[in-house]
Amino acid sequence: MKYQHLLQQNFQVSFNYDIIFSRSIFDVTNSSLIDVIKKEPGFQQPKIAIVIDSGVVDCTNQLISKIINYFNQYQFEVTEANLIIIQGGEEVKNDPDYIEAVLQLINNNKIDRHSFLIAIGGGAVLDAVGYAAAIAHRGVRLIRIPTTVLSQNDSGVGVKNSMNYFGKKNFLGTFAPPYAVLNDSDFLTTLNERNWRSGISEAIKVALIKDVSFFDWIENNTQALNNRDVLVMETLIIRCAALHTDHISKKGDPFEKGSSRPLDFGHWAAHKMEQLTNYEITHGEAVAIGIALDVTYSFLSHKIDKPSLDRILKCFLALGFAITHPILDTHLDAVIKGLDEFREHLGGQLTIMLLSDIGTGEEVHSLSNELIAESVQYLYSFCLLNTEVC
Amino acid sequence: MKYQHLLQQNFQVSFNYDIIFSRSIFDVTNSSLIDVIKKEPGFQQPKIAIVIDSGVVDCTNQLISKIINYFNQYQFEVTEANLIIIQGGEEVKNDPDYIEAVLQLINNNKIDRHSFLIAIGGGAVLDAVGYAAAIAHRGVRLIRIPTTVLSQNDSGVGVKNSMNYFGKKNFLGTFAPPYAVLNDSDFLTTLNERNWRSGISEAIKVALIKDVSFFDWIENNTQALNNRDVLVMETLIIRCAALHTDHISKKGDPFEKGSSRPLDFGHWAAHKMEQLTNYEITHGEAVAIGIALDVTYSFLSHKIDKPSLDRILKCFLALGFAITHPILDTHLDAVIKGLDEFREHLGGQLTIMLLSDIGTGEEVHSLSNELIAESVQYLYSFCLLNTEVC
Ligand SMILES: NC(=O)c1ccc[n+]([C@@H]2O[C@H](COP(=O)([O-])OP(=O)(O)OC[C@H]3O[C@@H](n4cnc5c(N)ncnc54)[C@H](O)[C@@H]3O)[C@@H](O)[C@H]2O)c1
Ligand SMILES: NC(=O)c1ccc[n+]([C@@H]2O[C@H](COP(=O)([O-])OP(=O)(O)OC[C@H]3O[C@@H](n4cnc5c(N)ncnc54)[C@H](O)[C@@H]3O)[C@@H](O)[C@H]2O)c1
Ligand SMILES: [Zn+2]
Ligand SMILES: [Zn+2]
Repeated sequence: MKYQHLLQQNFQVSFNYDIIFSRSIFDVTNSSLIDVIKKEPGFQQPKIAIVIDSGVVDCTNQLISKIINYFNQYQFEVTEANLIIIQGGEEVKNDPDYIEAVLQLINNNKIDRHSFLIAIGGGAVLDAVGYAAAIAHRGVRLIRIPTTVLSQNDSGVGVKNSMNYFGKKNFLGTFAPPYAVLNDSDFLTTLNERNWRSGISEAIKVALIKDVSFFDWIENNTQALNNRDVLVMETLIIRCAALHTDHISKKGDPFEKGSSRPLDFGHWAAHKMEQLTNYEITHGEAVAIGIALDVTYSFLSHKIDKPSLDRILKCFLALGFAITHPILDTHLDAVIKGLDEFREHLGGQLTIMLLSDIGTGEEVHSLSNELIAESVQYLYSFCLLNTEVC
Repeated sequence: MKYQHLLQQNFQVSFNYDIIFSRSIFDVTNSSLIDVIKKEPGFQQPKIAIVIDSGVVDCTNQLISKIINYFNQYQFEVTEANLIIIQGGEEVKNDPDYIEAVLQLINNNKIDRHSFLIAIGGGAVLDAVGYAAAIAHRGVRLIRIPTTVLSQNDSGVGVKNSMNYFGKKNFLGTFAPPYAVLNDSDFLTTLNERNWRSGISEAIKVALIKDVSFFDWIENNTQALNNRDVLVMETLIIRCAALHTDHISKKGDPFEKGSSRPLDFGHWAAHKMEQLTNYEITHGEAVAIGIALDVTYSFLSHKIDKPSLDRILKCFLALGFAITHPILDTHLDAVIKGLDEFREHLGGQLTIMLLSDIGTGEEVHSLSNELIAESVQYLYSFCLLNTEVC
């Protein structure tokens, strides 16, 4: 016996948002943010609530009074009541109390689907605040103001939010495009050395799988990046963000219903290493090691040639990235378990991106444990042989 | 000073799902459910976890062993470990512990984005389980098996999930289309009288704003519905579900970004009455009163004529619905506050659907408190004059 009647539901939803690159966005002369808020004229002045990363507040002189003043100058009623400071870094994604605090901010300020929640901070704060914004009233408008290299070129321009749960990275979350993204390179000047460097690995990632000329450019600019040249970093960020958003819109699977996830190149090991080190290494640092591992694996499995492998590993080293980590020695089995968790999180068939050339990825559906172990050994030897940069 | 660079992100996401109307879906001879699960052939047998409404379990003989047996017959490994029973009714949406229990089920059974979470129950259980399914791994596949009239013709076929928070109805939730919906009219036979009747108000709602001939049909079938004629109820459900899904796909705003919400006709007062009575009246009962109120308001504000008003109110009474509630007498101010909360939840301009004719809605952007109070009085008088049905 089968069904008696069938209805087929079928519809499409359009998403669009601007990613704006600017400087000094809270200077009253810069109307970028106000223009975003006023883009869709409403029947009344929209309400605003703001969440700021504690790390940004600590490093930026008078940030809060500057923000309040900015909005007041444009006739928006913003006071300390519309604003909370939230723990920066991975901790904000580990503790549901922070999500609760953002939900309370939304509720107390009667933020509705036509109001604006503005999140200012690193990728972790954007993930957590974005999650709260996505589940309140089934989604309030979120403006992201990323303040780290990684969040400006990668996490902040995409469509995902998350928090960690059951000890698993990003177990909870939704796909929820932001209302707009505003990148202000002024914020980058206060980053410590590790967070300045960290996000560069995501640019290398997207260059390696998509754009050899971008990789050439990064290789030629390691010195400028090490010298904290903000103009060069802006260029890197814009190019990385463009490749990233282009992939999301053109590759046909923005909400990741399939098994293929090219942008997660190097990430299976990265996520697990972050967790195993209790987030002592940053996401970007872990991604650098994860890419080094998967490129070496690509070489050992005869996909990419040795000169290309050398170029990639040396580029990481030249930028001051580590390409190995003690955990790969002491807990390799646990890292390899990350493959399962990676598959489980994405669902479907295990699909791992490797490289066949700089700028060209190639997907495989299984990895050999032995070859992973060999890749780890290779990286250790490579470091020994390149002590001048290691 | 303005921005230096702009990226414009723009993409579409397609959603499609089948709504299947069947009977005895856990009879081994009925492959409807298995066919849904096998629709997209994966690289391995997909994993399954099941959440069942306690009210359904209590009323259905041997349901759990029947379900387990069903899957086992089709070579799916389903045991008691893949299954939890969850509190039926609004309580499940009020207490986050139930969401936690579903998340644990998902985690323990390693349900990933290509696995299936099956929710069997009334609208409340579907809302709560749907919410957990939407936030785990950024969304696992959800098959809804609605077991009440309301969930089969309305809540279960749509794109929303939710839980109550901060004492506010549906404060948390997401837009998340299901993977499929399976309506089995066998479940309806065990509903108590109130829940059998309750969902009919959603059919009247959609008939009133969209389809006069459907309203005629309901009017002609009140007797059969009162006599619990399952075939007539199936017809009502299919027609209501079709109008509902049609609206979602054709009216261009499935994720409710705008201010207009025709399907929420009668709902502003309904939501508030549910909350004020501590959910002692069901959603459908509250919707009936909310519609009666808004239709009377439509009459008193000269939009709809008296014969049409009479027909509508008498139809509700003939079906055994109350069209007034003591709370409208004792707490009218509080009910009217519901208008604000309704606007706040949706955002944008207050937009309320009234009727200009049976089958034809008309939106307004404010309601007069005096006219609301007059409408309440009108309904009380109407009941007194129609004691034979009241
Ligand atoms: N949603 C996505 O698609 C996506 C993609 C990649 C990474 N991520 C997530 O992003 C997170 C990492 O983000 P991150 O690399 O930006 O690190 P982070 O957010 O953890 O921030 C690192 C530190 O820098 C501080 N900080 C932030 N901005 C600063 C500034 N301008 N000056 C001084 N200090 C500042 C923070 O307080 C924190 O202590 C991880 O949780 C990762 O999972 C998400
Ligand atoms: N997501 C949406 O778009 C949407 C739309 C409308 C309503 N809703 C929500 O739906 C909920 C109301 O749903 P409902 O009217 O189905 O009521 P319900 O889910 O509260 O169920 C009512 C009672 O019936 C029991 N029950 C369920 N199926 C049964 C069966 N076959 N036999 C015997 N008992 C059974 C339940 O255990 C419960 O005690 C509300 O929370 C409302 O907000 C959601
Ligand atoms: Zn990353
Ligand atoms: Zn309803």
